[in-house]
Amino acid sequence: MFNKILIANRGEIALRIIRTCKEMGVKTVAVYSTADKDSLHVRFADEAVCIGSPPSKDSYLNIPRIIAAAEITNADAIHPGYGFLSENAEFSRICEEYNIKFIGASPEMINQMGDKATAKATMAAAGVPTIPGSEGLLDSVEQGLSLAEEIGYPVILKATAGGGGRGMRIVNEPAGFKKAWDDARQESAAAFGNAGLYLEKFVEEPRHIEIQIIGDATGKACHLSERDCSIQRRHQKLVEETPSPFITDDLREQMGKAAIKGAEAISYEGAGTIEFLVDKNRNFYFMEMNTRIQVEHPITEEVTDFDLIKEQIKVAAGEHISGKNYFPKLYAMECRINAEDPSNGFRPSPGKIVNLHLPGGKGVRIDSHVYAGYVIPPNYDSMIAKLIVSAQSREEVIVRMKRALEEFVIDGIKTTIPFHLALLEDPQFVAGNFTTKFLDTFDFSTIKSTKEH
Amino acid sequence: MFNKILIANRGEIALRIIRTCKEMGVKTVAVYSTADKDSLHVRFADEAVCIGSPPSKDSYLNIPRIIAAAEITNADAIHPGYGFLSENAEFSRICEEYNIKFIGASPEMINQMGDKATAKATMAAAGVPTIPGSEGLLDSVEQGLSLAEEIGYPVILKATAGGGGRGMRIVNEPAGFKKAWDDARQESAAAFGNAGLYLEKFVEEPRHIEIQIIGDATGKACHLSERDCSIQRRHQKLVEETPSPFITDDLREQMGKAAIKGAEAISYEGAGTIEFLVDKNRNFYFMEMNTRIQVEHPITEEVTDFDLIKEQIKVAAGEHISGKNYFPKLYAMECRINAEDPSNGFRPSPGKIVNLHLPGGKGVRIDSHVYAGYVIPPNYDSMIAKLIVSAQSREEVIVRMKRALEEFVIDGIKTTIPFHLALLEDPQFVAGNFTTKFLDTFDFSTIKSTKEH
Repeated sequence: MFNKILIANRGEIALRIIRTCKEMGVKTVAVYSTADKDSLHVRFADEAVCIGSPPSKDSYLNIPRIIAAAEITNADAIHPGYGFLSENAEFSRICEEYNIKFIGASPEMINQMGDKATAKATMAAAGVPTIPGSEGLLDSVEQGLSLAEEIGYPVILKATAGGGGRGMRIVNEPAGFKKAWDDARQESAAAFGNAGLYLEKFVEEPRHIEIQIIGDATGKACHLSERDCSIQRRHQKLVEETPSPFITDDLREQMGKAAIKGAEAISYEGAGTIEFLVDKNRNFYFMEMNTRIQVEHPITEEVTDFDLIKEQIKVAAGEHISGKNYFPKLYAMECRINAEDPSNGFRPSPGKIVNLHLPGGKGVRIDSHVYAGYVIPPNYDSMIAKLIVSAQSREEVIVRMKRALEEFVIDGIKTTIPFHLALLEDPQFVAGNFTTKFLDTFDFSTIKSTKEH
Repeated sequence: MFNKILIANRGEIALRIIRTCKEMGVKTVAVYSTADKDSLHVRFADEAVCIGSPPSKDSYLNIPRIIAAAEITNADAIHPGYGFLSENAEFSRICEEYNIKFIGASPEMINQMGDKATAKATMAAAGVPTIPGSEGLLDSVEQGLSLAEEIGYPVILKATAGGGGRGMRIVNEPAGFKKAWDDARQESAAAFGNAGLYLEKFVEEPRHIEIQIIGDATGKACHLSERDCSIQRRHQKLVEETPSPFITDDLREQMGKAAIKGAEAISYEGAGTIEFLVDKNRNFYFMEMNTRIQVEHPITEEVTDFDLIKEQIKVAAGEHISGKNYFPKLYAMECRINAEDPSNGFRPSPGKIVNLHLPGGKGVRIDSHVYAGYVIPPNYDSMIAKLIVSAQSREEVIVRMKRALEEFVIDGIKTTIPFHLALLEDPQFVAGNFTTKFLDTFDFSTIKSTKEH
């Protein structure tokens, strides 16, 4: 086992990692920017090294300074958390070079899964379902029509140079193909000066369902079931839950098997997540793989009684997994509490937390680095706490989450708490009927402004 | 189900009850003394009524004012929490008279279990093991000798007028009986002017093990296994855990059956606790019954996934229990965080909490009513938080509790945190070798004074 782990991160995840290290009897080194000198990860680590000032390129993304901090403190491993350098192949390689164990994926693995096309090809070759479509650009409308026939409607035509929905057309039947082709080519030529199109199966009513996996050095992997992360605003996850109200036991089994197949095909070592899109007919397609711990990992921990950070560290230290898969024994949900104003387009709301009361009691877990008097710096992402609730049914999780949110007092800044309360009142959400498009049509005017205390 | 529950209590238990009421959709009324106007139970209840000022006889123990508060707010039930009026037969009777449901035991039950002799006789008649001994005073040394022979050595002779250990003698074999008898009589005559002695089986290396039970109106009861509360200082519990490291599966089964027998014999309704002493040979003896929720109830909740307050409320509203018994699926421990200075004889340390950081993360539950800026009034008991930790083994509970205690920041007052940290370093405690006498010989000088931050 490692003697000392340097945590190349900040905020709640740095504190989260320190907690597990303490329980494992492993010493910790915090690194911090000048903006974070009063942060709890600095206070609770055994040692702390200032590595510069914001922006992050001068501190949390500055590889030489982080390596230097590890060298002077004699850390034998680095945990990168999520974000920052957690999926940086160069950092992983340099750690290797300096004989410091990187608690994450190898440079090769990060590269392989970091490139979308390579990742997709690798998974497809391993037999993991991927979204069917053209190999590169279509040559002609006839080729498009024949491919659409083969993979089945609806399909989507996408501009190779596209973005923001322009040069994109959904086609529901052969009759509409020619017109969609012409329109999309014209639009993308005009917008991007490039009329090239490719084609994909259109995933109807998609849900974002991800499977947590762990692999070890023997090449063996296991899964810890799914997380439903469909509640997203502009691709930012806001609420996650497990088990997914949409996933059947049979589908869980199939998706778990596919995820293991994918992980074992690349001899994946450590904790990782395979993200899938699941359509309304419960077909699932590989989207991408995250070769790091994820923000929403605690909900999996709550329902499987597993400490995922501990598993990461153990696997990195060479221990082998049991090979057993883990299935949810409870229900859990996470609300991301961000310093943002949900009634004002989720505008960041940094500043000083004047009063703070964290909810507690049965089934409530808080992962947070803030305290009364803490000043949220404007330099970093705005998540200030994860509120994780578990119970014996989804209904109970929802009522418990509501009472915990109502009890959460954060005075001095705006937070996403009123958004979460409004979401939990939405009948469709409560019924479990939601896709990744859910927030596109959500009525944000139902959000009550933060209660004044 | 009730429409509105008045909570006739304060502090963490008032907040604890509000939490469950919220999750059940039941409205709440807080009552408070002028010393508690800034307390969170006042803030989080739907309504709050000031019922006077300290001392408690003018507020939390003032029955007319509490009944008046229930009447003006139209509360249809009262939850008394623990302490205060929770085991007051008169209060239970008056609630009945005013047609307000008392969420606790009936006046008869409280009286029956509140009187030690009646409680013991009732349990003995139901077939629950009680400590064998003389019925009242011994007439002669010969009668004592013959009784000791019958129940087996060691026995203890106790002065009927005694207290503080005077007039008490442990007798290990018949040869020593006569001398002990003479000494005890002489000592008690001199100390109390009364030489009367009675005799009991001496419980060797006693552990305080209590069984949580729930009964309903049909007369049926179930148990939720044990809590080991042997870690006490002057009969004040400081640390509780479940399962007990001393209790075997077989003994749990036996004690659970005995507790159910006792509860059903008196048609006990609601949540209650039957406290036993368990000797070194794992014989167990009824000590007393608590006809209320207990401070340490959360550890049972953590290992059985049961909300005991919810069960109390449901049973009080006439619902029936399933009759199934519950066994620990995890390990849990509670440390009582008191505003007391453990390096100074546990002297109370009321005052203002300047900085506060509550530990969080996996397996950590906090039940507390305090916040940064809160002023602990000197008028009430000194418990300010319950830190409850759960994990998959006792070893993991201990490391997790240590890291949580180390992370707990309460500046401005002294707390029992350093005591708990010292206890968790004690090899005998860690090995699970402790009795109710453990703290009598504990070296309190090993307690480090509160870390200055």
